[in-house]
Amino acid sequence: MESVKKPIYVELYEQFKSMIVEGKYEEDQKLPSKRKLSADLKISPLTVEAAYQQLIAEGYVYSIEKSGYFVSKRVEVILGVKESKVKIEHHQKDKKDDYLYEFNTNVVDTSLFPNSTWAKLSREVLSENHHEMLNITHPEGMSELRVEIARYLELYRGMHVDPSQIIIGSGSSSLIGLLVEILGRKESYAMENPGYSKIYHLFKGNDVHLSLIGLDEMGIRVDKLIESNANIVHITPSHQFPTGVVMPIQRRNELLNWANEKDNRYIIEDDYDSEFRFQGKPIPALQGLDYNDKVIYMNTFTKTLAPSFRMGYMVLPRQLISIYNKIKGYHGCTVPNFEQYIMYKFMKGGYFERHVNRMKNHYRQKIELIIKIVDKYPKIKMKGYESGLHFLMEVDSNISEENMISDARSNKIRVTGLTSYIQEDSININKALVIGYSGISIDKLEQAMNLLIQSILN
Amino acid sequence: MESVKKPIYVELYEQFKSMIVEGKYEEDQKLPSKRKLSADLKISPLTVEAAYQQLIAEGYVYSIEKSGYFVSKRVEVILGVKESKVKIEHHQKDKKDDYLYEFNTNVVDTSLFPNSTWAKLSREVLSENHHEMLNITHPEGMSELRVEIARYLELYRGMHVDPSQIIIGSGSSSLIGLLVEILGRKESYAMENPGYSKIYHLFKGNDVHLSLIGLDEMGIRVDKLIESNANIVHITPSHQFPTGVVMPIQRRNELLNWANEKDNRYIIEDDYDSEFRFQGKPIPALQGLDYNDKVIYMNTFTKTLAPSFRMGYMVLPRQLISIYNKIKGYHGCTVPNFEQYIMYKFMKGGYFERHVNRMKNHYRQKIELIIKIVDKYPKIKMKGYESGLHFLMEVDSNISEENMISDARSNKIRVTGLTSYIQEDSININKALVIGYSGISIDKLEQAMNLLIQSILN
Repeated sequence: MESVKKPIYVELYEQFKSMIVEGKYEEDQKLPSKRKLSADLKISPLTVEAAYQQLIAEGYVYSIEKSGYFVSKRVEVILGVKESKVKIEHHQKDKKDDYLYEFNTNVVDTSLFPNSTWAKLSREVLSENHHEMLNITHPEGMSELRVEIARYLELYRGMHVDPSQIIIGSGSSSLIGLLVEILGRKESYAMENPGYSKIYHLFKGNDVHLSLIGLDEMGIRVDKLIESNANIVHITPSHQFPTGVVMPIQRRNELLNWANEKDNRYIIEDDYDSEFRFQGKPIPALQGLDYNDKVIYMNTFTKTLAPSFRMGYMVLPRQLISIYNKIKGYHGCTVPNFEQYIMYKFMKGGYFERHVNRMKNHYRQKIELIIKIVDKYPKIKMKGYESGLHFLMEVDSNISEENMISDARSNKIRVTGLTSYIQEDSININKALVIGYSGISIDKLEQAMNLLIQSILN
Repeated sequence: MESVKKPIYVELYEQFKSMIVEGKYEEDQKLPSKRKLSADLKISPLTVEAAYQQLIAEGYVYSIEKSGYFVSKRVEVILGVKESKVKIEHHQKDKKDDYLYEFNTNVVDTSLFPNSTWAKLSREVLSENHHEMLNITHPEGMSELRVEIARYLELYRGMHVDPSQIIIGSGSSSLIGLLVEILGRKESYAMENPGYSKIYHLFKGNDVHLSLIGLDEMGIRVDKLIESNANIVHITPSHQFPTGVVMPIQRRNELLNWANEKDNRYIIEDDYDSEFRFQGKPIPALQGLDYNDKVIYMNTFTKTLAPSFRMGYMVLPRQLISIYNKIKGYHGCTVPNFEQYIMYKFMKGGYFERHVNRMKNHYRQKIELIIKIVDKYPKIKMKGYESGLHFLMEVDSNISEENMISDARSNKIRVTGLTSYIQEDSININKALVIGYSGISIDKLEQAMNLLIQSILN
């Protein structure tokens, strides 16, 4: 920074500014004339003029025509009540590096990401160099991309969606914020318990009333939902987070019936990892069963591509689009055009489907390996592994969840317990570990699983 | 879509599913055995097994070991109170194409965007191909980029900022949402009137109490701010939007004194186009005068690069960082890593400064051309043109603002009036047009300005 040489007028301006601020000039005192100052300092009168103009622009000086430059009225800054300077707490280094293996649920395996394809498409987007790419951002996202998403949802999720119902946004945080504004902060919301802590905090951060609804073996309990008097419910029917329950058709229909009973009832279907189903075809989305415009569908590319892309979308029922249209102008789209253009080409060219299939096979290899390992331990049972990138591990022993986690930790393994996904009240659930396996590479998985199981059982 | 051929098991599954849904099988009725069906249809028993497994996974069928497959309990979907299907209103084509020239304030001149540099840096980022780029998204944004932003703010905006105070987000909508969550929805907010309609709607959409504060020739009125009892105020001191007033040092200090009086008072400084000052150096940021951690600084790359990049940032006072740290985990960063890496290289390599300087010279040429044109019309006066990409045009005549705008429109020119930036109540202000000139290319500017002025004066 030292290397940047200031222009002379800036130095002069800064000198006068400090003198005025420090009170070395009085209010309305006349400053030296341009002519005098330029002769004294042996600089051009234009340089002095520039310094004085800057002082005028910032309000330190005023000028009177044919009379000269004068010091403006001064307002002293009085420091207020707060005395103690708050120090910035620099975070301790993340303890991450201390772990040998982390069974996290918020990472994906990026080793197979098609970097060269993505790079090729980026170059294409950059070289086509549309003015539109730089300038216009449609609030709801690029329409060609929305057409591709609608097509994908029809083919793979059994949904019939008009592209105009799709809104692209930079992930759950933006989309939930927008949705709460569309639905209203006075409505009564509900979600699954145990459930997604992130979703819990996003609703809480939006200052809405939130009820927590327990689960049974079919997923969220409709009787408890009715009791709560909530009118909007967030669910993960394809693969309940974190229990892995796939909601059967009966419960789906019960939920739709609940929603159909009143005009202001809605279901938010969070389809976060439905792409990865390892047996048969993916369970069709709940949205595809909805003929009454009651389901708001949400998904992101976090699990299919990588969390760093910050791209997701929601599908709004028709009557909510008209509310959205009133507010979209000042929200704008939260995803850069560049990313949207690349993603459009990635879907249009069939690369997305190919990548999802490739990842599904890759994750299937992983889960089959895990099943083989777990099979050797009769005390360990897996639940909810048919879909998605995590499962529940139940251990038949007297060790508490807490102790299992700390036993794993002492072997440098990071794992979370089901209890940590229970919000607020402590409902009764069976102890279990939540095993996210997507972030551990396949060549280390056997070692990691064996180490985890042995540290728990010993 | 027709071209995608379904696997046989999917066809079989779909046939059974429709028959079950349509009631052609009764509850608990037994389905044909795998052996019989495979013989009848001349398909593999494995294909039948796959179809049955999919029906089980979705809950339509249950199995009893050694006994067979049976139809599950059925829950009918009852359509609810809402009868009329809401139609999607497909928007009428934007009337944009009907205009010859648009003096908009929300566009920039992208003709000089350094496409090849940006493409080069993108390729670099893609070929370096860090795993970190794909996987980890720091909630507050990439730290190297935040270091560059801190350096830029020090050099060009007179601010002393620790990179840990900087939070990167995808533009005003995300950043205001986040800020309201940090400050609290129960606080009392205020903003300038006339002012940024977008900001008005963002605060309103966040359901906070918002007071509208009038302006005088120094900017926002502190006496009216005190009267309003608001404790958080959003201002545009470098170049008030839309009047173009540059807030002088006296008013800045008065505002700081106001904020310093109480612990819960804050100033949000929106520095949306301060980079473009055509005389002397940019006015230093108000944040640089604040020694009491009272100013929240906000800026985006919308004006300096293009609106399509969806990247901005805010600088938090130290005591607000600890609140942010508690919530950042579930918000995550709203900007893709890819964009952040490119932007980091763009700033680090000095390209950003060069581009801003180039654009400043380009816009200076435009505004000088406009001044020359307007000089020929004694009835027309320009205000607030020393900075930024828009100015006020005052016309000495009896024509109302409304009529001026419609006269322009009949000549296929789009322009807005100052009145449209007044929120809620109609305060008294002089009529004026708000002229955004950044989106009109320099070779068409003379023609556009002359046509605009002639259509108003005639």
